[in-house]
Amino acid sequence: MTVQNVSFLGLGVMGYPMAGHLANAGYTVTVYNRTTAKAQAWCEEYAGHAAATVAEAVAQADIVFMCVGNDDDVRSVTAQVLQTLPSGATLVDHTTASAELARELEQTCAQQNIAFIDAPVSGGQAGAQNGQLTVMAGGDESAFAKVLPVINSYARHAQRLGPAGSGQLAKMMNQICIAGIVQGLAEALHFGQQAGLDCEQVIQVISKGAAQSWQMDNRATTMLANQYDFGFAVDWMRKDLSIALEEARRNGSTLALTALVDQYYADVQK
Amino acid sequence: MTVQNVSFLGLGVMGYPMAGHLANAGYTVTVYNRTTAKAQAWCEEYAGHAAATVAEAVAQADIVFMCVGNDDDVRSVTAQVLQTLPSGATLVDHTTASAELARELEQTCAQQNIAFIDAPVSGGQAGAQNGQLTVMAGGDESAFAKVLPVINSYARHAQRLGPAGSGQLAKMMNQICIAGIVQGLAEALHFGQQAGLDCEQVIQVISKGAAQSWQMDNRATTMLANQYDFGFAVDWMRKDLSIALEEARRNGSTLALTALVDQYYADVQK
Amino acid sequence: MTVQNVSFLGLGVMGYPMAGHLANAGYTVTVYNRTTAKAQAWCEEYAGHAAATVAEAVAQADIVFMCVGNDDDVRSVTAQVLQTLPSGATLVDHTTASAELARELEQTCAQQNIAFIDAPVSGGQAGAQNGQLTVMAGGDESAFAKVLPVINSYARHAQRLGPAGSGQLAKMMNQICIAGIVQGLAEALHFGQQAGLDCEQVIQVISKGAAQSWQMDNRATTMLANQYDFGFAVDWMRKDLSIALEEARRNGSTLALTALVDQYYADVQK
Amino acid sequence: MTVQNVSFLGLGVMGYPMAGHLANAGYTVTVYNRTTAKAQAWCEEYAGHAAATVAEAVAQADIVFMCVGNDDDVRSVTAQVLQTLPSGATLVDHTTASAELARELEQTCAQQNIAFIDAPVSGGQAGAQNGQLTVMAGGDESAFAKVLPVINSYARHAQRLGPAGSGQLAKMMNQICIAGIVQGLAEALHFGQQAGLDCEQVIQVISKGAAQSWQMDNRATTMLANQYDFGFAVDWMRKDLSIALEEARRNGSTLALTALVDQYYADVQK
Ligand SMILES: NC(=O)C1=CN([C@@H]2O[C@H](COP(=O)(O)OP(=O)(O)OC[C@H]3O[C@@H](n4cnc5c(N)ncnc54)[C@H](OP(=O)(O)O)[C@@H]3O)[C@@H](O)[C@H]2O)C=CC1
Ligand SMILES: NC(=O)C1=CN([C@@H]2O[C@H](COP(=O)(O)OP(=O)(O)OC[C@H]3O[C@@H](n4cnc5c(N)ncnc54)[C@H](OP(=O)(O)O)[C@@H]3O)[C@@H](O)[C@H]2O)C=CC1
Ligand SMILES: NC(=O)C1=CN([C@@H]2O[C@H](COP(=O)(O)OP(=O)(O)OC[C@H]3O[C@@H](n4cnc5c(N)ncnc54)[C@H](OP(=O)(O)O)[C@@H]3O)[C@@H](O)[C@H]2O)C=CC1
Repeated sequence: MTVQNVSFLGLGVMGYPMAGHLANAGYTVTVYNRTTAKAQAWCEEYAGHAAATVAEAVAQADIVFMCVGNDDDVRSVTAQVLQTLPSGATLVDHTTASAELARELEQTCAQQNIAFIDAPVSGGQAGAQNGQLTVMAGGDESAFAKVLPVINSYARHAQRLGPAGSGQLAKMMNQICIAGIVQGLAEALHFGQQAGLDCEQVIQVISKGAAQSWQMDNRATTMLANQYDFGFAVDWMRKDLSIALEEARRNGSTLALTALVDQYYADVQK
Repeated sequence: MTVQNVSFLGLGVMGYPMAGHLANAGYTVTVYNRTTAKAQAWCEEYAGHAAATVAEAVAQADIVFMCVGNDDDVRSVTAQVLQTLPSGATLVDHTTASAELARELEQTCAQQNIAFIDAPVSGGQAGAQNGQLTVMAGGDESAFAKVLPVINSYARHAQRLGPAGSGQLAKMMNQICIAGIVQGLAEALHFGQQAGLDCEQVIQVISKGAAQSWQMDNRATTMLANQYDFGFAVDWMRKDLSIALEEARRNGSTLALTALVDQYYADVQK
Repeated sequence: MTVQNVSFLGLGVMGYPMAGHLANAGYTVTVYNRTTAKAQAWCEEYAGHAAATVAEAVAQADIVFMCVGNDDDVRSVTAQVLQTLPSGATLVDHTTASAELARELEQTCAQQNIAFIDAPVSGGQAGAQNGQLTVMAGGDESAFAKVLPVINSYARHAQRLGPAGSGQLAKMMNQICIAGIVQGLAEALHFGQQAGLDCEQVIQVISKGAAQSWQMDNRATTMLANQYDFGFAVDWMRKDLSIALEEARRNGSTLALTALVDQYYADVQK
Repeated sequence: MTVQNVSFLGLGVMGYPMAGHLANAGYTVTVYNRTTAKAQAWCEEYAGHAAATVAEAVAQADIVFMCVGNDDDVRSVTAQVLQTLPSGATLVDHTTASAELARELEQTCAQQNIAFIDAPVSGGQAGAQNGQLTVMAGGDESAFAKVLPVINSYARHAQRLGPAGSGQLAKMMNQICIAGIVQGLAEALHFGQQAGLDCEQVIQVISKGAAQSWQMDNRATTMLANQYDFGFAVDWMRKDLSIALEEARRNGSTLALTALVDQYYADVQK
């Protein structure tokens, strides 16, 4: 079977350009966005059309993609999807959400013979726009194989990492790493400024060695310019760390640094 | 003036290969090591000769390099150096030590018309062996210009970052960054193992994006194999963080994550 | 109206003796426990009788007390209570649970003209047995006035602290304080032992001053005997801190120490 | 031998009233203060006279008391004391300082047949004024027995806790406990305010139970009034925690909460 019809639900910062790449790649794209204006704007920019409801948007789809906010949003949108999505189709969720939700929705979808893939992304807004996202996926192997070429429209690298929820768990590992990196970098820059160093110059030197990180290469200058706007959405980061801490509570891991960083973000949010 | 005679004091894990690169580069090298056996071994491997005392080792030197343990060691060795080092020479300290010490020793040396450069390194044992160290320097600009070509025998990149102490302060920034990166990575791997993920595979995927770091690229596999041997000397790391925390106390910066990581190392040391 | 009939749901470590005090105080007590054996044991020890279901237990009640496990437990038991509890009655929840749940259940109960009081307790098993509990309550003022004399059967001090949820919020403050106190005490004892001090003697001296706490007076000796069994149920403490951290996320407070202590308990749980 | 002549060095917030109690108890008191004006004021308030130098102040003393700032101050004042203090006398140091210093000074003093007692205090300015301090002492047993009745002029409770340094180590335990208590209390109050509770009322209730502490009883109201002035000298507290963290580094204990609280104080200091 060749995939023809795809739907994209949620045209936010991430979803809008992702859906655009699908259209550019030649798929027949139906989009849906809760706030209608964004869907209309999208239709003016890309080939494809907008549906008035989720149910209408997915009624003919082979694959449905979604990128909304949090667990509650995913659950609510999925309920609407399941009203009309044909048996045999696949639902791919790009939202960063809990692993538990992924396991739950895989079960629910299975009852209608629909495959569910959790597929959170990293790469930020720039990655979505340039079609250079990293996609971490969980779920059935053959279902993933079917969606992979389509996902590659906007991904530099997409990989299945295990059963349902594995994509979300991998994204949690990603965010835990970032929490440590960004906080270490923030403290180093704060320290350097207090010490009267030329931090730009120091970063140039130390980024050649064992202290190097993607964040240092790409964010240190921004952070120096305005130390408290961390160059990413603090609200999303807190949501993500909250999901990771919740999962850690369940699987018995100790995440002291992550818990502490999460509390710093509480201060930053104010 | 062309530099001919150089001395190297402290043939430890770092100093031994560094002094070797100087010999290989054609300098006339005199080495000194407290424990004589190491100096003898060095003389068998490289062209150069060993002196019985620090005073003897530096009596004819244009430049003296030293790489010993901590502040106390540097202070004690420097006192011996100043007994015989000729006026006009330069003393380069590659030890990771405090910025205060560097400022103090620059003053002391100046009284004998000797330039002092603090020049801690990063790159580890491998960097020392391959001559690929990064050198962060502080001190007088022309003194640094004089020693730079010699340092380049074992450095991939050496840079002066400001007045006396600036090299040490830059190294502190380096270690603060590493503290956050390594702890975040350790927590992510611990979490991934508790979650039952194939961590190698996840690391391969996420190292393509915003969670990437030198530590992830070079240490994650080792850490997975034996999570609590961090692939570097915990004792050195604690010494370095202690120096940074002490300096932070002085310059009024807040290093909560660094302080916490330092305490974890206390547990690891046991 | 004079209160005659009271029901007690959940005869655990806390509920069993609390219900006993009600019987001893002369109230007509009907108890219910999911595991029947405990209810039978209770009936042999106290005047009162056991019901086979929640619905049966509360069908004639003026006041229903409940002390179960967590939010989910409270929600499930309340649903059963509302099947038969007469209009005009009051439901008092002694479980440590979330403030949100209290607000939600107050609304639900109000639809059947039933008052809901959140009333978590402190004082532990000993307090329950000796009738010396502290009760922190939230909810309607006149409803609280009605139940107060009955609660006094097992409370040294019971107080309403505001609208629905206020009891739970006060209990969270209580647990946050305890988290800091116990962790500080644990670190001090650990430090003292490493320093080779006679910790019992030191505690006797410092408990006379600004370092004094109920925990020091009552728990230090136990902690010294076996430092890692903290003399209270670590699982309950983690649940309570989790509730507090969740609420903090909602109300925008930063609880760094609490978050850190919660992570230590993660280690202790292993 | 009956003690007649005592000297008090350092008439700061603590020393001034302590020396006053000695005078009121009938001892012949000679005081010294670096800033002369304070010594003069003291002489106008109490019976006793002021000396112009440390050496003069202690030349006839049986016991010398000192309460100055930090390790460096104690070392410098002690050097002056040893110029004239007669053999057979005792030097009691009430400064909060390191245990290492106490061990070092006991040795130095012993060479002149002078006993050295480390005797840091708790109880704050109020305790000093009311003569209700707690004194934690280390050093020789018979030397302590000799000074105890004199110390009781201003102490509610004074106790020897072991050899030289033990008083300082006990004081560190005291400060570690306080660090946890105060931070827990601060977070609880912050949380309560964000939650819209009447915190005064909640504190009244929870101070009856397991969350009680001297700090809660005596400082909560002040902290509520002005959350960031902690009712004690943050600078002293940081000095004390720094001493404890340094000692922990030496004796191999892990003080994560203490390290974190110390960093918060860094923020408060700004
Ligand atoms: N932004 C980033 O850098 C990254 C974000 N992510 C994750 O991707 C997800 C989306 O992020 P982003 O695009 O930035 O978010 P936006 O807030 O920009 O977009 C969210 C989208 O979801 C829709 N939506 C939310 N809730 C519902 C609902 N209940 N029913 C229907 N539609 C809903 C919104 O509709 P409407 O327009 O009507 O509000 C909007 O289209 C999040 O989980 C985020 O954590 C992952 C990596 C990077
Ligand atoms: N190892 C690493 O990966 C890195 C280390 N560093 C820093 O470099 C410095 C040296 O480290 P490393 O080479 O690993 O250490 P080693 O312990 O291997 O070597 C230390 C050297 O210093 C000498 N030494 C120490 N104290 C004295 C003293 N008081 N008088 C005379 N000689 C003394 C030792 O002599 P002896 O042989 O007699 O003991 C030895 O030659 C440290 O400051 C460390 O933090 C920086 C980057 C990486
Ligand atoms: N304040 C408090 O609540 C408590 C304090 N402590 C501890 O007690 C000690 C004293 O505290 P506090 O009285 O509050 O401090 P103050 O700053 O009020 O007083 C310090 C005293 O020491 C003198 N002094 C300091 N350095 C020297 C020096 N190098 N040579 C000679 N004299 C010196 C000062 O002299 P000058 O007047 O000339 O400056 C002054 O008399 C500290 O170690 C503190 O940590 C312990 C418990 C409670």
